[in-house]
Amino acid sequence: MSGAANGKVTTMTASPTSRTAVLLDALHGETPLVHCVTNLVATTFSANALLALGASPAMVEDPEEAGELAAVAGALLINTGTMSPARADGMHAAVVAARGAGTPWLLDPVGVGPLTMRTRVAGHLLDLGPAVVRGNASEILALAGHEGGGRGVDATATVEDAADAADELARRHGTVVAVSGAVDRITDGTTAHRVAGGHPLMGRVTAMGCALGALTAAFLAAARTTGDDALTAAVAAHAVVGACGAAAGAGARGPGSFVPAWLDELAALDGAAAPDALVDPA
Amino acid sequence: MSGAANGKVTTMTASPTSRTAVLLDALHGETPLVHCVTNLVATTFSANALLALGASPAMVEDPEEAGELAAVAGALLINTGTMSPARADGMHAAVVAARGAGTPWLLDPVGVGPLTMRTRVAGHLLDLGPAVVRGNASEILALAGHEGGGRGVDATATVEDAADAADELARRHGTVVAVSGAVDRITDGTTAHRVAGGHPLMGRVTAMGCALGALTAAFLAAARTTGDDALTAAVAAHAVVGACGAAAGAGARGPGSFVPAWLDELAALDGAAAPDALVDPA
Amino acid sequence: MSGAANGKVTTMTASPTSRTAVLLDALHGETPLVHCVTNLVATTFSANALLALGASPAMVEDPEEAGELAAVAGALLINTGTMSPARADGMHAAVVAARGAGTPWLLDPVGVGPLTMRTRVAGHLLDLGPAVVRGNASEILALAGHEGGGRGVDATATVEDAADAADELARRHGTVVAVSGAVDRITDGTTAHRVAGGHPLMGRVTAMGCALGALTAAFLAAARTTGDDALTAAVAAHAVVGACGAAAGAGARGPGSFVPAWLDELAALDGAAAPDALVDPA
Repeated sequence: MSGAANGKVTTMTASPTSRTAVLLDALHGETPLVHCVTNLVATTFSANALLALGASPAMVEDPEEAGELAAVAGALLINTGTMSPARADGMHAAVVAARGAGTPWLLDPVGVGPLTMRTRVAGHLLDLGPAVVRGNASEILALAGHEGGGRGVDATATVEDAADAADELARRHGTVVAVSGAVDRITDGTTAHRVAGGHPLMGRVTAMGCALGALTAAFLAAARTTGDDALTAAVAAHAVVGACGAAAGAGARGPGSFVPAWLDELAALDGAAAPDALVDPA
Repeated sequence: MSGAANGKVTTMTASPTSRTAVLLDALHGETPLVHCVTNLVATTFSANALLALGASPAMVEDPEEAGELAAVAGALLINTGTMSPARADGMHAAVVAARGAGTPWLLDPVGVGPLTMRTRVAGHLLDLGPAVVRGNASEILALAGHEGGGRGVDATATVEDAADAADELARRHGTVVAVSGAVDRITDGTTAHRVAGGHPLMGRVTAMGCALGALTAAFLAAARTTGDDALTAAVAAHAVVGACGAAAGAGARGPGSFVPAWLDELAALDGAAAPDALVDPA
Repeated sequence: MSGAANGKVTTMTASPTSRTAVLLDALHGETPLVHCVTNLVATTFSANALLALGASPAMVEDPEEAGELAAVAGALLINTGTMSPARADGMHAAVVAARGAGTPWLLDPVGVGPLTMRTRVAGHLLDLGPAVVRGNASEILALAGHEGGGRGVDATATVEDAADAADELARRHGTVVAVSGAVDRITDGTTAHRVAGGHPLMGRVTAMGCALGALTAAFLAAARTTGDDALTAAVAAHAVVGACGAAAGAGARGPGSFVPAWLDELAALDGAAAPDALVDPA
């Protein structure tokens, strides 16, 4: 009986993060187009994070246009913040087009739990096969059908509180689930990795988790070239974001100066110095 | 005959600002959820300002979701910039839910006066009982039914031009009216305070007034715990924003470097060093 | 037979950029109201760029409100990013009002080419007489009816690839066409100028081209006072943006620190030191 079948998650002894450098190099070489249907708070910051990393962002949410773009993008991000019926239509059109074209996509269920419409929309999207689901512990608990305890978009549950729910969600939907917190945990339901790093100031900047979702989508696009799986791509993205956060936080006076410093760190990344050491299997 | 009845406003000899430190401590202790229905230009900056101050922002504007969130928030901000019929529906739903739940809310009538739809919407919202109305002089004059002389969203009238209209508006609607300018003036129709401080660069950064509205809403949330009234909360918010503006402006090269510096100042605030001295009754 | 008639473009021996200082002084003196109907990614950054330069931005996109504002603005910007049927209605209303009032307006056809709706909308708007059209080479090629090779919003064609299409577009529609790239090229179909300057980091910041469009609109507003034509205004805007980009880029660690530095440079401009030397007729 495998780890998946009995609900026990096996840790890998070989870290997948030797692939981070390879993924970064691929990303820098191809400047993948990352299509984002994201929320109004996150849109500019996510676009700047993608550009800093070396991807090419396109923020397109109208149903007609989103369908056209998702089919030609390297990856697609769906983020449920600032939900509306119109935006839900754009998300659906984008995901359907992505599925048809084989474009990998990521679901970031911002605010799922206490808000009814986005909980319903995210549940529907989950059935359409995201390569990765990324959220905070409250959102992942809510998406998995547990009581999340969230009150809007901030997390009150811890990453470890959501570990079992994340593993179960990953197995049930054949996806990778990344739960963000002081130490992130990323699982495909069989193997889980923890990613340390980051900085407390990341919690004082809006849409930092949303930007992490966008950057994870960029790594999914790069993984199409390198042949890596979604778990490896997601771990690499979280390691990179955490490493840049730690470096930026060390020199920042506060959350205001953290933001430009973090973008500068993203832009200064090169494959040779990719932050492998931050990742531990767990 | 009271000051209110004859239209004369009395100044208090005891400054309410000894409460600023208490309000800040309460805010830091409880991280209040501040629900914002705000404009597209202000959304990211307002969220970052709230996080820097120590509140938890949620930018939710869909009518269904806004109604759900306003009922559980610590305070609600309604900002009429980038108005549309859909956004007006979200504002209305949020305010109705806030009223039902006893959530205090603030009306920021951005651009009211020259633009017909938002002037009509703001007038309607005003009848629903905001705890605070915050705007520039032109907007307050227009909301009070005077000719404001504004041309869109910038103020051409001075704070003192709008003093009588602000006092009258406050008395008529049982609210607090804060008029922003080089020296802010905040009145409940009986007592008015002037808040000095700030920096000329604040006028060169977009959505600075909108962020002030959001931060005032955060102080309204904190005042539910401390038992302070809306006038005291609004004065504290304006004092804090002005003090942080003065500190940030002193070191900034221009409006670009001012923004991260101002957010850093907000995040560095502590109750013990709260900026009481900037407030004079007037 | 003139240069226009036989499709050959004449270069001017007298640079129009002696007017940059005059336009900047006029702009600083009058703080023109620049009405922007722009995309969700660009709105905050464009507003901050306009404020830094010394203009007064108003981001208003609802059809009713956009019609009211465009009639009283100094200039109007229409940017087709994050297109939707509702936003297209706002653009149309704003342009019709601008035409009626004699307000000059600029069309920035973001993403035109691969996306059908915005290509159709931009083609329609082009027939309504913009004073300036500004885009990257792929967008201008697509708008002129050539195959642009773009894949969303990033340029894959070079400025020189689009030179003939830009000249033809300018002549056919009686407008000025500015194509942005490492060296910008601005033409009225008879005379073309190249503007050097800028910095590679400008390509790593989202909405930098959109901000250039907004600032060009501000110079169109100033040109109403100085009596300069749209070609001169557009060249001045591109020279100023490029000069500020070069100065900011020289001191920036990466794209994050570039943004505040660039806004600081815009705010520090004065007419006496206007960057004439960057422009060469070509």
